[in-house]
This record gives sequence, structure tokens and C-alpha cells, in this order.
Amino acid sequence: MKYFSILHQRWYHFLHNEELKQKIYSIVFESDTPKGKLFDIILIGSIVLSVLLVILESMHIFPHSAYLVLRVVEYVLTLFFTIEYLARVYCLKQPRKYIFSFFGIVDLLATLPVYLSFFLHGTHYLLVIRAFRLIRIFRIFKLFTFINEGNLLLRSLWISAPKIFIFFFFVLILVTSMGTVMYAIEGDAPNSQFNNIPNSIYWAIVTMTTVGYGDITPVTPVGRFLSAVIMLIGYTIIAVPTGIVSATMVSEHKKLEKRRCPRCHRDGHDFEALYCKYCGARLKKTEPEKANEERRNDERF
Amino acid sequence: MKYFSILHQRWYHFLHNEELKQKIYSIVFESDTPKGKLFDIILIGSIVLSVLLVILESMHIFPHSAYLVLRVVEYVLTLFFTIEYLARVYCLKQPRKYIFSFFGIVDLLATLPVYLSFFLHGTHYLLVIRAFRLIRIFRIFKLFTFINEGNLLLRSLWISAPKIFIFFFFVLILVTSMGTVMYAIEGDAPNSQFNNIPNSIYWAIVTMTTVGYGDITPVTPVGRFLSAVIMLIGYTIIAVPTGIVSATMVSEHKKLEKRRCPRCHRDGHDFEALYCKYCGARLKKTEPEKANEERRNDERF
Amino acid sequence: MKYFSILHQRWYHFLHNEELKQKIYSIVFESDTPKGKLFDIILIGSIVLSVLLVILESMHIFPHSAYLVLRVVEYVLTLFFTIEYLARVYCLKQPRKYIFSFFGIVDLLATLPVYLSFFLHGTHYLLVIRAFRLIRIFRIFKLFTFINEGNLLLRSLWISAPKIFIFFFFVLILVTSMGTVMYAIEGDAPNSQFNNIPNSIYWAIVTMTTVGYGDITPVTPVGRFLSAVIMLIGYTIIAVPTGIVSATMVSEHKKLEKRRCPRCHRDGHDFEALYCKYCGARLKKTEPEKANEERRNDERF
Amino acid sequence: MKYFSILHQRWYHFLHNEELKQKIYSIVFESDTPKGKLFDIILIGSIVLSVLLVILESMHIFPHSAYLVLRVVEYVLTLFFTIEYLARVYCLKQPRKYIFSFFGIVDLLATLPVYLSFFLHGTHYLLVIRAFRLIRIFRIFKLFTFINEGNLLLRSLWISAPKIFIFFFFVLILVTSMGTVMYAIEGDAPNSQFNNIPNSIYWAIVTMTTVGYGDITPVTPVGRFLSAVIMLIGYTIIAVPTGIVSATMVSEHKKLEKRRCPRCHRDGHDFEALYCKYCGARLKKTEPEKANEERRNDERF
Repeated sequence: MKYFSILHQRWYHFLHNEELKQKIYSIVFESDTPKGKLFDIILIGSIVLSVLLVILESMHIFPHSAYLVLRVVEYVLTLFFTIEYLARVYCLKQPRKYIFSFFGIVDLLATLPVYLSFFLHGTHYLLVIRAFRLIRIFRIFKLFTFINEGNLLLRSLWISAPKIFIFFFFVLILVTSMGTVMYAIEGDAPNSQFNNIPNSIYWAIVTMTTVGYGDITPVTPVGRFLSAVIMLIGYTIIAVPTGIVSATMVSEHKKLEKRRCPRCHRDGHDFEALYCKYCGARLKKTEPEKANEERRNDERF
Repeated sequence: MKYFSILHQRWYHFLHNEELKQKIYSIVFESDTPKGKLFDIILIGSIVLSVLLVILESMHIFPHSAYLVLRVVEYVLTLFFTIEYLARVYCLKQPRKYIFSFFGIVDLLATLPVYLSFFLHGTHYLLVIRAFRLIRIFRIFKLFTFINEGNLLLRSLWISAPKIFIFFFFVLILVTSMGTVMYAIEGDAPNSQFNNIPNSIYWAIVTMTTVGYGDITPVTPVGRFLSAVIMLIGYTIIAVPTGIVSATMVSEHKKLEKRRCPRCHRDGHDFEALYCKYCGARLKKTEPEKANEERRNDERF
Repeated sequence: MKYFSILHQRWYHFLHNEELKQKIYSIVFESDTPKGKLFDIILIGSIVLSVLLVILESMHIFPHSAYLVLRVVEYVLTLFFTIEYLARVYCLKQPRKYIFSFFGIVDLLATLPVYLSFFLHGTHYLLVIRAFRLIRIFRIFKLFTFINEGNLLLRSLWISAPKIFIFFFFVLILVTSMGTVMYAIEGDAPNSQFNNIPNSIYWAIVTMTTVGYGDITPVTPVGRFLSAVIMLIGYTIIAVPTGIVSATMVSEHKKLEKRRCPRCHRDGHDFEALYCKYCGARLKKTEPEKANEERRNDERF
Repeated sequence: MKYFSILHQRWYHFLHNEELKQKIYSIVFESDTPKGKLFDIILIGSIVLSVLLVILESMHIFPHSAYLVLRVVEYVLTLFFTIEYLARVYCLKQPRKYIFSFFGIVDLLATLPVYLSFFLHGTHYLLVIRAFRLIRIFRIFKLFTFINEGNLLLRSLWISAPKIFIFFFFVLILVTSMGTVMYAIEGDAPNSQFNNIPNSIYWAIVTMTTVGYGDITPVTPVGRFLSAVIMLIGYTIIAVPTGIVSATMVSEHKKLEKRRCPRCHRDGHDFEALYCKYCGARLKKTEPEKANEERRNDERF
């Protein structure tokens, strides 16, 4: 009874040890200190190693005995990632914000599959989600140009999202209809690959996206004629998402060019820049800048 | 004789019962009342169910006895859609406008194939046209952002239509010529798949749209050389519709940005917005707005 | 001797019969008179029939005896096109201008293959070049909107031509190199389809244009890796012609919008418009308009 | 001993013979003199011949005895290119600048493979790198329009580079994940082509770039569903590089249009133009012009 009390007390101290939290925070979240930088490099190395192991394992080029070693390394790395995840949650004041952020979810999903693989066969391969953790690489090596460009890309995609959603809704209705009609036309041909509607819809998507594997192809004259029509429609339709993204990027580009220094009147400043890079004058705040200010706090994770 | 007279009288009353018409109108066309909303949700559920049934039927995963059930459900749903169509025609003051609108034609085509299937085999699958009725989903759930974006997309495609039509006319002449020339070159090779000109034209379309199934491929050196030329032409040509749609979207985007509030001078208002979303001032009317006003009346259907 | 003199005299009169020339000109070049319109419709009908005959002939669906009929019809149509060509040359004051124009060359190429087919087998199919004569259809039916749009498209492509030429020069060097390297890597694999460099270059073009037939595919790990690199390069490179054409079209669009009426200040006038379509005021001449004025004289052909 | 001293002296004189250097420079680097022009034409002829020889050799259409001739021609050409390379290095004041320029590296790589092929089999085919030397053709024939257009293209690609790099980083993570998941799903199917993760990644790249060979295709329902999702993602993603390049080109176009003559107010001047092509007034310097001035010095090579 007394023993549990001591344990409870220590646990309480651990949970509220602000000094320890600060120390861990500077290691796992920041990369300005030597320790933080070392941690980040080890982390990235572990992620790359872990993904490479999964790829190598699938190639069946090792002798049978080596697989035990591979498995042990994988467990060790997973343990490391689990401790890292717990440390991240532990040292934050608002862990919930991290846990439900993009990186928080990816970090969790990067460890879970291995634990799941004890119960369910095949989930083991899902640990490749770890690869997405590599996006951190830009922050660690302070490649801010790339972060800015990446943000511009994300912003363009984000602004285009409702248009692209509408577009996909329409494409889904179209491929369902086209697939069904092709099933009605081609389904009766001997050895037809259009043997059910889901396969025909799969064919319609393969065709409309211009992938064109050729594993399912029309053989009847009517089917070929309809396919040609679908291809030409797909040809026009491929222009739509491109047009959407192009138009958005042109518009974002122009906004960027409008960020003109009030003192020296030169433009070409990033959305996030606070001061003119030529004369140091304070730039006016832009809407994306405000959005980015909020995001920058989350970017840490 | 007297009996018919009574029947005729009742029919006349039914046809001119404005109160009933108003009641039905509020149910089938509007979704503001609880009844109207319920009707819309049942309708969308029925459409999805109906399309799913067709897909499931084609997969041959049910025991033979289940098909009778499937067929009965399909007839019940078709009856429901038929009654709905008649109700829509009945309750409008200008039914002709609805009947010849996009949704009016789709609604009719969504019921006809089942009736046709009594006489003609295979038409049964055309009922998948019902899927297009799902476009209503955006209006029902008041996803106006998506409707606006969809309208912008449609406007861009509509403005681009003559250019794209010209483009397709040219593409058709090109694939006909290319197909014929390839038939002349490849047609004599043993086991050639270029066994007639329609198949060669089909091949030219498959190639030029960069789908490339590989079910028909050139085997002679001259044929391969000409194919390479066609591909490189197709590569340039794929740029044209994309360029058309991109240019139109950039231009539409810019018009949108020109809708500036006369009081607070902020922009970014939708084409359809009547009042500034920041300060509530009345915005100036735009040409597309006027066009949309007309369309909004039809949009109901 | 006297007989030849009469013949020569008649021939001379025929060559300088301005009245006859004017009459023929109004029939074959213009479509404002009933006779001219009738001629144009017969001409278009003959072209369509002639192309359809070639297509039908290749399908081997007629009994053997029908081919004589097909061949006779073809000769009659070719005779008609030949007389038409001679009439066009005859009635113009500057026949050379027509003979070396796009339509002049197409008109000649539309008749030659049939005459050539007496001496050379296979040239017969080249008569499909006739299909290009159908472009006249827009002028005949006075579809000027389409002509304007087509001119805008052509202008954009024409302005983009040097950029696209440079681009293709680079692509050719790239596919030659890539094809040779892939031959060095894959050529030794058993049953390799990379059996010589031209085939490897053909494969590189098929891959880079994202057509991807799959008739030639890499099988070695190194070959697959290099293919993936080529695909990703092709993916970026496909953006270049699209970007070129898009940028040109955006710029042409903007010029179009700059054609503002000096009296009512409304824009949206075609390049070729001379008067404001809203208030009738004389518009300022633009450079493309001047270019089009010259072209309009040639457009007749 | 005396003999070596003389040799050394001659060598020294040769190394500092400014007159000879100037003479060689005017021949190998310039094409304004008849000798320089002749040299350039012989050079381009040799490159084309050399590339054609490699292609012809691979086609196995010559009798066995001819290969000795081919090989001798190849050695002679390689010797010529080697001497040319040494001459280029010799006659420059700052040879280092040339050696590490794009053309310097290409010129070296154009000779090395043949020497390497004495030791390593297969490197022989790398001499196709010579094809890249043909880019000089535009400078030699003074096709400055094309050079300007090419520079605009390169500038656009260069400005877009960080965005495209970010994009590829993301695509690589995506195809690795997708490939692994597809291996987990499809790997167990009998005769599955998804037999290891590298092959699955290769498949993911083939699919996402819409090449779609069809040598590896999913067969299970889950695999086909996931493939369809990947295709639709790829369809959206293909829009991104196009959007990037289009936006950059639109923006570059606009800068070009801003180069307005201060005297006659006409625009449309090249980035590199120093004087107005209409009235001869001095144009203002632009940033790209300054960049080009530096580059122009290197362009020689």
C-alpha cells in the first residue's frame, strides 16, 4: 500500500516536471541545439532504415536465417518510435493539439501497424506510413525556401479543393454510367473481361485517366466506338483539374507580386516575409501571412 | 355516360387543384419544410440503392432465388420514380420548361429503360442514368459553395465549348487520316491487328489520347516510326484543351476578383453574391449574375 | 493545219474568257449564290462519301462483286475533284497564290493518290487526305464564331511554335540517349524486346509521352529503375508544352479584352471586329486584325 | 638531358603561344569566319554520323565484316572529338570555367565512354551522350529566336525547380507507400506480378504517371479498387507540375510585355534586347537581362 503511494507520488512528479519537459521539448521538437540536431538526424536515419528494411525483406534475397535479425531491428526501431511519440505527447502543454495534427496522426500510425501485426497478418506492411515522417526533413535542415514553395503548393491545392471535389463527384457518376453501359455492350462477348460492373467501372477509370493498362479492352465494334468517345471525353476532362490548379497558381503568383515594399517599392517577397528583404522596411500583413502565423505554431510537430 | 362525365369532372378538378399543386411543389421541389427534406433524402437513398442493385446484380454473388427479389425492388423503385416524375410535371405551372431541362430529361431517362426492358433485352442497364440525378445532392444539403464552384466550372467549360468543338473536329480529321495511313502500312503484316480502317482509327484515338492499351500495336519499322510521330503530335495537342480551359479559368478568376465592394473596397465576392460579405453594402450587378438569376429559376428541377 | 489553228484560237478564247471565269469563280469559291451553295454542299457530300467508301472498303463486309462498283464510284469522284481543281486554277487571276496555299496543296493531294495507284500499289489509301478539305465546312455554313475561335487557336499555336520546336529538339535528343542506354541495359536479357536501338527509341517515345502500350517493357531491375526515372522526367516535361500554350492563350485572351470600344467603353470584341457590337462605333485596328485582313483574301480557297 | 630541356622549352612556348591560341579560339569557339563555320559544320556532321553509327550497329543489318569498318570510323571520330576537347581547353584563358560548364562536361563525356570500353564492356553505348552536343546547332546557325525562346523555357523551368523538387519528394513518398500497400494486398495472389516491393513501386510510378504499360496489373477486387484511387490521385497530381510551369510562364510572359520602349511606348521586346526594335531608343535593363549578360559569356562553349 505504502509502495503504491510512493509510486503514485513519483508518477505525479514526473507528470509535472516542467524542467524535464522543457529539456525533452528542446530535443524532440527543436533542432537548434546540438542534442536536438543529433536527435533529428538519428530519427531521419531510423525512418529511412526502417523503410529500407521493409523493401529489402520483400525481395527475398537474404538467407532464411537473416529474417530473425531483420525482425529484431524492426522491433527495436518501433520501440524507439513509440518512446519518441510518448515523449512528444509528454512534453507538450497542449498534447491534444499535437495528437490530432497531421504529424501527430502520422507518428501514431507509424508505430501501430507493428503492434497490430501480432494479432492480424499483413498489417505489418502498413508501417511504410513512416515514410511520410520524412517531410520533416525540410524543417530540420532549415530548407525554408522549400517550405515556402511547399506552402504555396498546399495553399493552391487547398483553394482548389472544392472545385476538384465537385469535379471528382462528376467523374464518379460518369465512370459508373460508362462502366455499366460498357458491361451491357461487352459483357456477352466470349471471354469478355467486362465480367461484372465493378470491373467495368475499373476499366472506365483506367481509360478516363489515360492510364490504359490494356488488361481489359473492348473487342466489339460498338464497344470500341464507345471507348473512343470515352477517351475523347477523358481528354477534355483531363484539362479541367489542370485548368483549376493553373488558374489558382497564376492568381496566387499575382498576389505574391503584389507584396510591395512601402519604402523601396520592390516586390517579390514571400507570403511569410515580415520585412523587406532589400531595405528592411516593415511589410504590410497579408491574409495568408495571418493564416501562416497560426500554422507556424503547429509546424513544429 | 353519366359515370364518364363525373370522371371527367374529377379529372378536371384534379388538373386545376392549385392547393394540391402548391403542396406537392413544396414537397418535391423544395427542401425547406420537414416533409420536403424527408422526401429528398428518401429520393437520394432510392437512387443510390437502385444503382447499387444494378452493380450487385452484375456480380453474380447472390443465389439464383435472390434475383426475383432484386427485380421486384427495382420495379418498386421505378414505380416510385415514375410517380415522382408525374408529380413534378403535374405541380408546375410551366411543365414544358421542366420537361426539356437537363434534369427533366435525366428524370425521364431514369425510368424509361425499365419499361423498355420488357420489349428490348439489355436496355435494363441504361437505368444507371439515374446516377446523374445525384447531382441534386448539392442543392438538397445546401452546399452552396460547391454549387458556386460547380457553376464556375460549367461557365468555363461553356465559354470554352466552341474552341473545344473546333479542336475535336480537327482531331477527328487527323485520326481518320492517321488511321487510314497506318492501315495501309500495317494492314499486310501477318496477324496484324490493323485489320480494317475503323480499328485503325480506334488505335489512332487510343494513341493520341495517350491511353495506349496496347491491344493494337505497330510491328513494322515504318509503322513504329509513324506511331512515334503521332504520339509526339498527340503530346503537343494534349496541351491545347488544357490551354483553352486554363486561359478561360484565369480570365474568369480575374473577373471574380474585380467584384469589389464599393463601400469597403474588399474583393473576392462570388458571382452570385448580391451584398458585400464584409460590410453588407449592395454590390454592382455583373453579367454572369444576370445569367445566373435566370438559371436559378431552373435550378430547382 | 487550219484545224489546229481553230483549236488554238478557241483555246486562247477559253483562257481569256473573263465572263466565264467570273461565273465559275462565283460557283466554286463563293457560297452566297444558290448555285455556289449547291456546289459547296455537293462538294462536301462527295468528300464525306469518298472517305466513307475507303473505310467501308477496308471492312471486307461487301460481296466480292460490289468492289467493282466501289472502285467506279471512287474514279467518278476523283474525276469530279480533278475538274474542280482545274476550275479553281482556271478562274483565278493569280492561280499561283492558290496552288501554293494550304488548301491548294490539300486539293491537289486529294486527287493525286488515285492516279498514282495505277502505278504504285498502296498509294490508294492516301486519298484520305481529302478529309482535310472538310475544314471548308465552317466557311460554307458561315460558322464565323468557330472560324474566329479556330483562328485564335491557330494564332496561339503559331506564336508558340518556336518554343515547341525547341522543346521537341530537346525531347528528340533525350529519347535517343535514353533509348540507347536502355538498349545497353536490357538488350542482353533473354527474349528482350529491346532488340535494337530504333526499337528502344520507339519505346522511349511511347514511355515519355505516357502512351505506354506495354508491347516493349523493361524486365531487369536496373531497366525498371531507369524507366521510372524516364517516366518522372516525362511527367515534368509534359507540363512544358501545356505551359507554353496556356501562357500564350492567357496572353491572347488579355489582348482580346483590351479591344475596348472608344465610345461606349465596352470590351469583348473579336480580333476581326471592325465596329463595336454594342454601339456601332468604329474600333481601332489591331495588329492581328491587319494580319487577318490579308489572310481573309486567301481564306476563300 | 639537353633533349628534354628543348622539349620542355617548346612545350612552354606552346602553352603560352597567344597568337596560336587566338587562332584556334576563332576556329573552335566562333563561327563568324569561314574556317570557324566550316569547323562547326564538320563537327555537327561528325556528331550526327557518330550517333547514326551506334544506331545502325545495333540493327545487325550489316555483314559481319563491316563491323570492323564501323569500329574504325568510331575510333577516328572519337580521336577528332578528343583533339577538339583539348583544343578548347588549350585556347581559353580560364579553361576551368569551360571544363565545369554544362557543355564542357558533355564534351568530355562524349569521348570518355569509348576509352572506357577498352576496359569495361557496355560503356560503349554511353557515347550517345554526344547527341547533347547538337544543342550547339542553334548558336552555329545563328537561330537567335530559338535561343531566346529556349532561354525563356529554361528560365521558367529553373524558377519552377524548387516547387517541382518538393513535388517529386512528395510523389516519391507516395509511390513508396502505395507500392508497399499494393504488395501487401496483391502479393499473395497466384502468379502475382507484385512479387516484391521494388516492382510494386515501379508499378505505382507506371500508374501514377498514367503511362500504364499493363505488364503489372492488379487482379484482386481490393487491389483494383485501390488502383482506381491511385489513378484518380495521379490525375489530380498531374495537374500540379503543369500548373507550376503554366503559372511561371504566364508570369514571365507578363514581365516580357512590361519591357516597354520609353520613347515610342511599344512593347514586345526580348529580355535580351538592348535597343527598341521600332525606334532604336535605349531600353531599360531588366534583371533577366543582367543574368543573361553573364550567361552570354559562357554560352560560347
